[in-house]
Amino acid sequence: MNWTIEEFPIKELATGETLKLKTYTVKGSEGPHIHIQASVHGAELQGNAVILQLMDLINQTQIRGSITFIPLANPYATNNKHGTYTYGRYNPVTGHNWNRNFVDIINVSKFDLIGFVENNIHLPWHELKIVYKSELDQIFRNYFDKLIETRALSENNKLNLMLQHLASKADGILDLHTGPTATRYLYAAEYEAEVSHYLKFKYNLIIPNEYAGSMDESAFMPWVHLMNKLKAQGREIIPDIESFTLEFGSEETFRMDEAAKDVESIVNYLRYKGVLEGMPDKIDSHSCLLENYKTIFSPKGGLVDYHFEPGQKFNKGDTLASFYNLKNIDPNDPIESSRSAVKAEQDGIIINRCPSSSVHQGMELYQVMTKLSEHKV
Amino acid sequence: MNWTIEEFPIKELATGETLKLKTYTVKGSEGPHIHIQASVHGAELQGNAVILQLMDLINQTQIRGSITFIPLANPYATNNKHGTYTYGRYNPVTGHNWNRNFVDIINVSKFDLIGFVENNIHLPWHELKIVYKSELDQIFRNYFDKLIETRALSENNKLNLMLQHLASKADGILDLHTGPTATRYLYAAEYEAEVSHYLKFKYNLIIPNEYAGSMDESAFMPWVHLMNKLKAQGREIIPDIESFTLEFGSEETFRMDEAAKDVESIVNYLRYKGVLEGMPDKIDSHSCLLENYKTIFSPKGGLVDYHFEPGQKFNKGDTLASFYNLKNIDPNDPIESSRSAVKAEQDGIIINRCPSSSVHQGMELYQVMTKLSEHKV
Amino acid sequence: MNWTIEEFPIKELATGETLKLKTYTVKGSEGPHIHIQASVHGAELQGNAVILQLMDLINQTQIRGSITFIPLANPYATNNKHGTYTYGRYNPVTGHNWNRNFVDIINVSKFDLIGFVENNIHLPWHELKIVYKSELDQIFRNYFDKLIETRALSENNKLNLMLQHLASKADGILDLHTGPTATRYLYAAEYEAEVSHYLKFKYNLIIPNEYAGSMDESAFMPWVHLMNKLKAQGREIIPDIESFTLEFGSEETFRMDEAAKDVESIVNYLRYKGVLEGMPDKIDSHSCLLENYKTIFSPKGGLVDYHFEPGQKFNKGDTLASFYNLKNIDPNDPIESSRSAVKAEQDGIIINRCPSSSVHQGMELYQVMTKLSEHKV
Amino acid sequence: MNWTIEEFPIKELATGETLKLKTYTVKGSEGPHIHIQASVHGAELQGNAVILQLMDLINQTQIRGSITFIPLANPYATNNKHGTYTYGRYNPVTGHNWNRNFVDIINVSKFDLIGFVENNIHLPWHELKIVYKSELDQIFRNYFDKLIETRALSENNKLNLMLQHLASKADGILDLHTGPTATRYLYAAEYEAEVSHYLKFKYNLIIPNEYAGSMDESAFMPWVHLMNKLKAQGREIIPDIESFTLEFGSEETFRMDEAAKDVESIVNYLRYKGVLEGMPDKIDSHSCLLENYKTIFSPKGGLVDYHFEPGQKFNKGDTLASFYNLKNIDPNDPIESSRSAVKAEQDGIIINRCPSSSVHQGMELYQVMTKLSEHKV
Repeated sequence: MNWTIEEFPIKELATGETLKLKTYTVKGSEGPHIHIQASVHGAELQGNAVILQLMDLINQTQIRGSITFIPLANPYATNNKHGTYTYGRYNPVTGHNWNRNFVDIINVSKFDLIGFVENNIHLPWHELKIVYKSELDQIFRNYFDKLIETRALSENNKLNLMLQHLASKADGILDLHTGPTATRYLYAAEYEAEVSHYLKFKYNLIIPNEYAGSMDESAFMPWVHLMNKLKAQGREIIPDIESFTLEFGSEETFRMDEAAKDVESIVNYLRYKGVLEGMPDKIDSHSCLLENYKTIFSPKGGLVDYHFEPGQKFNKGDTLASFYNLKNIDPNDPIESSRSAVKAEQDGIIINRCPSSSVHQGMELYQVMTKLSEHKV
Repeated sequence: MNWTIEEFPIKELATGETLKLKTYTVKGSEGPHIHIQASVHGAELQGNAVILQLMDLINQTQIRGSITFIPLANPYATNNKHGTYTYGRYNPVTGHNWNRNFVDIINVSKFDLIGFVENNIHLPWHELKIVYKSELDQIFRNYFDKLIETRALSENNKLNLMLQHLASKADGILDLHTGPTATRYLYAAEYEAEVSHYLKFKYNLIIPNEYAGSMDESAFMPWVHLMNKLKAQGREIIPDIESFTLEFGSEETFRMDEAAKDVESIVNYLRYKGVLEGMPDKIDSHSCLLENYKTIFSPKGGLVDYHFEPGQKFNKGDTLASFYNLKNIDPNDPIESSRSAVKAEQDGIIINRCPSSSVHQGMELYQVMTKLSEHKV
Repeated sequence: MNWTIEEFPIKELATGETLKLKTYTVKGSEGPHIHIQASVHGAELQGNAVILQLMDLINQTQIRGSITFIPLANPYATNNKHGTYTYGRYNPVTGHNWNRNFVDIINVSKFDLIGFVENNIHLPWHELKIVYKSELDQIFRNYFDKLIETRALSENNKLNLMLQHLASKADGILDLHTGPTATRYLYAAEYEAEVSHYLKFKYNLIIPNEYAGSMDESAFMPWVHLMNKLKAQGREIIPDIESFTLEFGSEETFRMDEAAKDVESIVNYLRYKGVLEGMPDKIDSHSCLLENYKTIFSPKGGLVDYHFEPGQKFNKGDTLASFYNLKNIDPNDPIESSRSAVKAEQDGIIINRCPSSSVHQGMELYQVMTKLSEHKV
Repeated sequence: MNWTIEEFPIKELATGETLKLKTYTVKGSEGPHIHIQASVHGAELQGNAVILQLMDLINQTQIRGSITFIPLANPYATNNKHGTYTYGRYNPVTGHNWNRNFVDIINVSKFDLIGFVENNIHLPWHELKIVYKSELDQIFRNYFDKLIETRALSENNKLNLMLQHLASKADGILDLHTGPTATRYLYAAEYEAEVSHYLKFKYNLIIPNEYAGSMDESAFMPWVHLMNKLKAQGREIIPDIESFTLEFGSEETFRMDEAAKDVESIVNYLRYKGVLEGMPDKIDSHSCLLENYKTIFSPKGGLVDYHFEPGQKFNKGDTLASFYNLKNIDPNDPIESSRSAVKAEQDGIIINRCPSSSVHQGMELYQVMTKLSEHKV
């Protein structure tokens, strides 16, 4: 196959070494471009196993279009340990969540999108896409230069802008994450909800076509803005450019055997996009709107016995977890006196749970999907 | 004097202990209420020394009105150490900056402020204040109850809401902070700019009457919303309720001798408010709009020799810091070959600097005020 | 039952709260004293579940002698979080492993053990034990006072000495731990090897009758010293006082259902000691000498796919783990080019493994028992 | 000048990058070899500034012998940040102090030193040195190979052995450190006490000719062992090979202007060794035996007002620090009620103090020299 390797410096360390991104791009015949990255959160490793499996598989076939792979998209985060665990969720210096400071480039750059739409609304969609991508490329270059010039390029900006800039060339963007202790699930924007079923995840979280700082959003927002402005001018288009976050199980885990199965979801999407040959299929799945995706914050501090695992269903009234307060033991009835229950207030499915049984009041205990709608094939 | 002590549980720990806030309230004759707290960021200690000095001083005098003191307003943060330093800036579990998740209570509670204004616009201001404070009290109670009910009370919510709720009763709110390695300076909202001079800080940072998640903003926003809605109805009032963030030097530092001087700024403000007797005075000072308060992010990684200390002026072209890259030494010219300069792009004053000389690319190097306006008495 | 609760202050925090140990003691008729504690390493939680189950069980029966339970024996460590995980293995301020700074009290106190033996060698063992325990009590009191007087009482001393002092009154000391990601196993000193089988662990690690700073050692060393000095005087005794470390699976885990089974090992030991009624039994088990307990340090850095789980047997030549270096991918053969194997050099059983798949060179990958000897009942 | 640059890989990170040591060696005419390294503790930066100044100065002169410089001798530690501070004192994964796990190579390698001495005792000292250094080189190579073979090369071993191995070729080893918040001082072994005065430090700490795991000790122990064995055979020699730890002020600080003065101590030592031309001189100084170097551990938790700075003398009875317990305020006498004093129990000089005023019970408050002896020139 025709592979290209590139390196991008992202962070010069205090000791003078420079951490770099390494991108692996494979090109086939004319066709769409796909961008696949893993480990924006440093402890979320499984996506790298999926990338290896997919690279391997692609060497055994033909592709249309091109794919760029970025394993270990945030090496500073992956290398940051305290104890044996990885502090990959937030920047250890500033505390910023690595996946909440991507920028809505159209807004922050103050690009004249209305002017652009007026000039280009007549173009057929496949040409409009090309012109818009070319504009985006220039917008990122200018914005980046301005930040450097004014020394406003902060901790996360450089990495974020570099990833967004690379992703802005793509027709499909897959950001591979994991939860803490988690089942497999997918984030999809409303406008992508239909396509999302080709990724064959059992649980799909539908997020608004809006911006909250994550990579997937930063990649689809330019197209959402364009879609909205076109609509305002009377042209209705659902962009055939998607950006998803794929959650492959639990953090700190790297399993090649599971990756061999995980890769199937991406392969199916690549079939849908026409990058790989073959008929894509769909599976029965569940969708949940973001407003029904609930975090249960710990109402108490204590040692926690979790009664449900990620992927399990629960019903209203079920005891989801028991808290034990060991400063509060009546020795004549030690278990009952120290225990209190956290009960489910409605039916749902466990998606994530806290990986520790030592929990302070207010920590995230579970994240659950409620009010799921079923999608039968 | 007439002191009251109260305790408020804020966080039950995994081991069953509960961290509590302790408030000390002193009451004199009828008059305004002042709320003074310290250490929302756990490593920022000097405000506690200021509180002790002020409590001491008040025992020797008479006051009008009342003052509530909350030293160590975030004990979980102050107790959190890694190495000998204190991890007080952000929540160690989630990474959230402790002073960016206060809520704009009028917005999040969806309070019908327009209805409230319509019903009460006719009231004289001193009565309107009382009615509004009473409403705020109820709003906080309801909002808090709702979060508990839905188990949506996260890590920071409980502490933040408790502090905001207490502060909502006050006519003057002083949130005592420090910078990293820093000079003394003040944050004031636009509408408080005039009053701010009574706090006698040499450097004043003027922030918009807007919301970005900090305690001072959360305390003045209900009054800004009210001011705006009254204005929309034709009644122009600048609220005589202020909320400031006072920055007393560097973190990790607790100096009673310096606190004896620091306390003068608050004493003068209390004179202005009529809580303490005596004529308040003002000093010559400098103001800077938030848009001209610049963070210089480190353009490189390396060991840093800082050439300016907080409080020092610099001119355009001055070398603010030298970076040394020790992986890049030409041994025949070791100093020049490894060194690069960060130069000032405009005149200004150093407010904060990074407390470490070991700096990764993108870290905050300095925060500087530029385009200062002078206020002569 | 006849329960006593006591509290012992162990650490005054910067904010003024004091963390305390809470001990629960149950007394029956005349008989031996047992000391059971959990969570010296803060993230090792399962022992607390075992304690609750045992306290519960004891309420339903009669005991001879007495038992002191200390759940959460190191609350400062259990409460120390960075991210969601618990930094319980070492003191976050100093880096000291919480279970390596207990003291060999006979040595550090410079107690005249030779003189003591000369004076008391004629006593029958059951009397000698009582006299010696009484001496130990005084030694701890004096040593503690001296440290306080000279302000030499460091971070860990206070906690360690308090636990050792309490344990010095006991005839059986059980220190409940867990591994990182681990199977269940037991540490026993050589002189206790026979008795250890009553604890019914499948894997027993036999450590020398020597001192390396852990709690179990600190509790048996006074008796080892006494045994050695008596022997030098011609009296051979194997003390009927034991001190074991019990490893109940993986850290961060608290499971009451598993504790209901874990508790069986202690119940059986209590039967052996005569504290509980009933005939103790033994199970088939494996023993490993400390010199054959091997840590496999990571020969490389990379993402790790672990091929064996704790409790699994492996043979010489087996691939224990695969490392993937993702900066080293040949895209034409991505899996093979980035992978390298860590192979077993001899037969053995996996006891612990690193809980993260993101591993720097030199980190602990596995701990394994080799050259096991079988003990058939 | 004649410079050589070499690179030594020391740690492959999880993401595949390899951190390396870089050594800069300058050679002149025949003469002794000097080894100078900095930043074994990652936050201790000033030694790197001293190295740059010394390299610069050497380019302007002639040297006899050779010098190897190793700036940033522990890049993993220097790069490890939590918040803005550097976690350089201990390994963040294991908690091991970076300067307590060097090995006593003669002991751990089980080298037959008695046999070696028997074979070589007749050699003149300058030849014996060469033969012994050659043996050491082989000992390190074999020991290193054995650890790799058995996969026993842990976190710190590789770095430690590499530095020790390099230092084993030298006739003078200078390990540049800093304290936390500290004055300048020197560690010297008893046998080097006389020579130590050529380093012109005001405060010298005299440590026994023994081993406790630090780099300086690991470099002098082979010579101490040799000295002892020769003495046992009747040949008394004080080795003219020295190994010192130089403490250049406070951590996190990098000041080139101060380094220009700091470098004078090393220049004077190099004159003494004959590496640089010119007559070495000495200054009046103070020495303290290790047993009189006292750590004052915090007897309480609280906010601390330090009344003495490093380098200051104090007398018995002086209040060294005041603790404020802010959970314990009597509002009618806030300062007195919350304050308690830590008084000096004897005369002395402050060497180090804790860099934070937020202090838990048991933390290191001060390190002080007592019972100093004066050395007048």
